[in-house]
Amino acid sequence: MILGIDIGGTTSKLGLVHDGKVLARARINTLGHADEHAFADALADAGHRLVQADDHRPLRAVGIGAPNANQLTGIIEMAPNLPWKNDVPLARMMADRLNVPAVLGNDANAAALGEWRYGAGRGIDDLLVVTLGTGVGSGFIVNGKLVLGSAGNAGELGHMILVPDGRQCTCGRRGCVEAYVSIRGMRETYAELAGSVAGILSEEGVLPIAKAASDGDANAVRTFDESARWLAIALANAVCATGPKRIVLFGGIMRSGDLLMKPLQEHFGKVLLNIYQGRVDLTVSALEEDDAALLGAAALGEQ
Amino acid sequence: MILGIDIGGTTSKLGLVHDGKVLARARINTLGHADEHAFADALADAGHRLVQADDHRPLRAVGIGAPNANQLTGIIEMAPNLPWKNDVPLARMMADRLNVPAVLGNDANAAALGEWRYGAGRGIDDLLVVTLGTGVGSGFIVNGKLVLGSAGNAGELGHMILVPDGRQCTCGRRGCVEAYVSIRGMRETYAELAGSVAGILSEEGVLPIAKAASDGDANAVRTFDESARWLAIALANAVCATGPKRIVLFGGIMRSGDLLMKPLQEHFGKVLLNIYQGRVDLTVSALEEDDAALLGAAALGEQ
Repeated sequence: MILGIDIGGTTSKLGLVHDGKVLARARINTLGHADEHAFADALADAGHRLVQADDHRPLRAVGIGAPNANQLTGIIEMAPNLPWKNDVPLARMMADRLNVPAVLGNDANAAALGEWRYGAGRGIDDLLVVTLGTGVGSGFIVNGKLVLGSAGNAGELGHMILVPDGRQCTCGRRGCVEAYVSIRGMRETYAELAGSVAGILSEEGVLPIAKAASDGDANAVRTFDESARWLAIALANAVCATGPKRIVLFGGIMRSGDLLMKPLQEHFGKVLLNIYQGRVDLTVSALEEDDAALLGAAALGEQ
Repeated sequence: MILGIDIGGTTSKLGLVHDGKVLARARINTLGHADEHAFADALADAGHRLVQADDHRPLRAVGIGAPNANQLTGIIEMAPNLPWKNDVPLARMMADRLNVPAVLGNDANAAALGEWRYGAGRGIDDLLVVTLGTGVGSGFIVNGKLVLGSAGNAGELGHMILVPDGRQCTCGRRGCVEAYVSIRGMRETYAELAGSVAGILSEEGVLPIAKAASDGDANAVRTFDESARWLAIALANAVCATGPKRIVLFGGIMRSGDLLMKPLQEHFGKVLLNIYQGRVDLTVSALEEDDAALLGAAALGEQ
């Protein structure tokens, strides 16, 4: 039995995982605690309650996925979207409170491990998993192991530069993948094409663009096509690095389904280097979205 | 004792390697043999003679670096610059002839292993090695192992797309790194800036551009600066994939020395994502150029 924990900006979720299934769940607020110690106490309490409710099996480990988490150090490093301004050594804090080994990892890396162990990447030892949502995250798996890099922070596909001198990115540089194929990036593309951010973009996310595309709005259709092309180039470039056999895509943007996947498959087939043609496939996550983060976190603990 | 073999378009070199040193050398023509079997016979004869001349130590293995070689299959796959039109299973052919294990690998991958085992990347288990010459090759080392990818052909930094819809590349696509920072790419940049391919470009390679830059030719200086910027972006993108601690550069272009390295260090510092700042260094190969390919090939055999 593994306790998977997914730390989000407002809510943190817990799940008791066994054999690739989430057997029980809980959630606590990430915000509103006196400090990180009080937060860790609340997290441990919620974990304890889950474990006690399942009276048969002992807890083996805890896996925690969080933004800006460094798996080598076990520390959440000054995450801009979390309430603590300092570094939080959450792996050690949870290991102390729950008396089992705890592994903390980047949330996108957790997702990659989850897909590899339980999802659409099961058994694929050379795998790339890409999260498309508010940001663009990624995890590279090589020879059945997550690539952490020398400083524990490898796998930032979202910040590969796609267009030199291109759009401003939240990282302070220009032209990153994330500036084009995240939710913000797709909305910006639509606004550029339609000449205005008003109109359909009053709703959040990419859903309004998807609705408009389904209704035949040419700018919305073109937004999906251009985003698919940007993403195809980014993925083809990532293939040149580690040569994965499969790429698994997940996150909010993938709810657009064929609106994105159809042009993506087409562009990917065009921009992929000849030596990789027919040797790498693109697929969408097979995990239920609510479970993916918990299973991924549990997979971190199970490594 | 390892026999390292470097297969080139016109000449193939052999070296008897012990403890990171090339103790004896030989070379044969790659061209002019009746077929690949005759070529393998000639290669094995030259190898035998080297081993017999060193009468103390037994041969343990053969490592062979070649363009378009696939380490997983041991086959040279239809290399455009080699004389055989079909696939050549050279690993097996040499193992049969020399009665020791033989490993065949891509020449850029061999170079990466050589730098990791004997050169500027010694002891650096997360390493990227980039060859800058006629083409741009690369080898990614993760956790002390060469990344081969699921099909044995990972590590093609030269064919990451740097400029969507950019310059025509020899691979048939547009905008690849190789179209900008190879010898051909740099010459093209100079020709674009100077308005003509004539003048200093009558000599081969990048040496005439380096000479002109040293003499104060503004277009030549700018060619180095622009090439350095393209390369910096390509390297920063590669860092986002595997998070290496060090990048080692080698190949003909690196003979330009500070003309390239100075602007490269500057641009790399600017375009590297913040979380990698101060955590990855750029350096030039410490191996003698003639030995690098042989040591790299030997390192393949020693894996």
